[in-house]
Amino acid sequence: MKRTHGGDWASFIDRYGTDPLDFSANISPLGLPESVRAAIAAALTEADRYPDRDCRALRAALAAHESIPELWLLCGNGAADLIWRAVLAAKPKHALLTVPCFSEYEAALEAGGCEIRYWPLTQPFILTEQILSCIDRDLDLMILCNPNNPTGRTIEADLLRRIVRRCEETGVRLLLDECFIDFLEEPEHHTAKTLLESSSRLLILRAFTKFYGLAGVRLGYGMCADRTFLTAMDLAGPPWSVSALAQAAGLAALGDRDYAERLRTLIRTERSRLKKALEELDLRVIPGEANFLLFSSDQPLTETLAARGVLIRSCGDFRGLDECWYRVGVRTREDNDRLIEVLREVLT
Amino acid sequence: MKRTHGGDWASFIDRYGTDPLDFSANISPLGLPESVRAAIAAALTEADRYPDRDCRALRAALAAHESIPELWLLCGNGAADLIWRAVLAAKPKHALLTVPCFSEYEAALEAGGCEIRYWPLTQPFILTEQILSCIDRDLDLMILCNPNNPTGRTIEADLLRRIVRRCEETGVRLLLDECFIDFLEEPEHHTAKTLLESSSRLLILRAFTKFYGLAGVRLGYGMCADRTFLTAMDLAGPPWSVSALAQAAGLAALGDRDYAERLRTLIRTERSRLKKALEELDLRVIPGEANFLLFSSDQPLTETLAARGVLIRSCGDFRGLDECWYRVGVRTREDNDRLIEVLREVLT
Repeated sequence: MKRTHGGDWASFIDRYGTDPLDFSANISPLGLPESVRAAIAAALTEADRYPDRDCRALRAALAAHESIPELWLLCGNGAADLIWRAVLAAKPKHALLTVPCFSEYEAALEAGGCEIRYWPLTQPFILTEQILSCIDRDLDLMILCNPNNPTGRTIEADLLRRIVRRCEETGVRLLLDECFIDFLEEPEHHTAKTLLESSSRLLILRAFTKFYGLAGVRLGYGMCADRTFLTAMDLAGPPWSVSALAQAAGLAALGDRDYAERLRTLIRTERSRLKKALEELDLRVIPGEANFLLFSSDQPLTETLAARGVLIRSCGDFRGLDECWYRVGVRTREDNDRLIEVLREVLT
Repeated sequence: MKRTHGGDWASFIDRYGTDPLDFSANISPLGLPESVRAAIAAALTEADRYPDRDCRALRAALAAHESIPELWLLCGNGAADLIWRAVLAAKPKHALLTVPCFSEYEAALEAGGCEIRYWPLTQPFILTEQILSCIDRDLDLMILCNPNNPTGRTIEADLLRRIVRRCEETGVRLLLDECFIDFLEEPEHHTAKTLLESSSRLLILRAFTKFYGLAGVRLGYGMCADRTFLTAMDLAGPPWSVSALAQAAGLAALGDRDYAERLRTLIRTERSRLKKALEELDLRVIPGEANFLLFSSDQPLTETLAARGVLIRSCGDFRGLDECWYRVGVRTREDNDRLIEVLREVLT
């Protein structure tokens, strides 16, 4: 069966005949940066060539941006591409997932015939040090997401360090998905990037998709000090997966500090405003720290909101959540006001 | 080890410090159609959304273009993406390849741990009916390319029909790569498309990459009457693999009859002119029918041509060929003249 994801505006149009105001995807509400549009338009001139399959220029820029060696970087056709490649390259027999989590982890693991152990995160969805006891030598791969999707919760920095160390000691590969980390107040406090050098089993994933609004362009990257593993990932799928346009887009995005600043300010302000407004409607909101909020409602919302042209992410298909849960992306002030207005209509 | 492919201009620049005149890739020499550039530029407005993962609009246009049902179509991030997905979905234990052939078949099969049987095509690289005896019930998958890369030879239409029928009888899935078929004089005479309805084991691959110069944009598609298998392919990899820009590009390309006409005329004229010129230099040219020519030379050519800024595809790494073989794409009259000029310098 097809896996459900947010951002499925096309199915919405099929069903309701109109483009939704889409809160179901966790994408920058500022749209594609102007600098990125210009870069893609300029790249069209040479888009008849195969893309540089090693993404040399983009990796050089990323290496400077992240202060890591170029050799520790692998780019992908969105982070989802890298999740699949990592699983195909690692060929894990036993993997550990915390749930709820992004469903592509499970999809990729199942495609590889891996036995999955689930660590349930119960409300308020905070990872505790008890997880450490599950990381042992008969495990091959652990996948964590920080901040986690769909909860928006972060892993406490010291616990994350202990997890990384424990994975290193036990030889467990750790795929740490940091695709939403740029939306946090202090990304540098939360990232495990500084642990890469001492932790060859650590693979960190990042996305341009969300922060720079490149969902339709597709671009993500992985960081890992184990060059052999990155090469195995590179070979665990087709070549040229990152288009020439995506490479140009990524290069331009990295240089656009103004966009990043404006976006961080907007998300900070609107996340807290949206959270407060949802709580005022008696919805139980998880205090997420990313660009989306998870909440529960006693009343079903998907259909009634859809009838009003608003699409939110019903979370009933997330393992560990039920139909009461919904996720909404933080959007512009105007859009968020519209969401609140519609929710107020529906709930009262 | 990394697989070698044509079109690796980036490695050429690394080594020689300059952009090559690139004959190593088999791409339309007319560049991106203007209509496609405009369509991509227009699609940037909504490129912050996730792509429609079902490629609805593009598949509808393709269905009309190919006169097949939409449900028989699956789009991919270039044909290479679909090769990998087909192999991951089919999970073959035993596969049959004719060699020489495009190296991604072998790469995908090996990643899946498949045992590969090789059917050597010896000069002049024509597939004979003897292949039929190799198609039996203990085979899971057969891969053919028509016209074949790197030889440019086509499979005789009646033999192809018999192969398709034999695969159907024995339950062998047939991946038929028709990525270069649009460059033939009479594509409709060579395609197995009309056999799809009666042959559920047949999967035909096509690319926009080559004919429409979309190598840097990435777009291919598969046609198969077995909807269950297409769904399995769709799920055998990450979602959103076809970018929103590629979907817009494909839609525009399908509507650009003028480009297609101009390209066919150019390739027809230049292929025969280039072949003649190569033969006049005493090179042994295989009478390929696509937009590239395979030839052998007693003298090593790669380095001497590279030193003159010209990149050709050395075919020594193709299974079944040796270092004497080279492949060149058919380009514009001016470019082809330059190739001949440089070859003449080097060879005499």
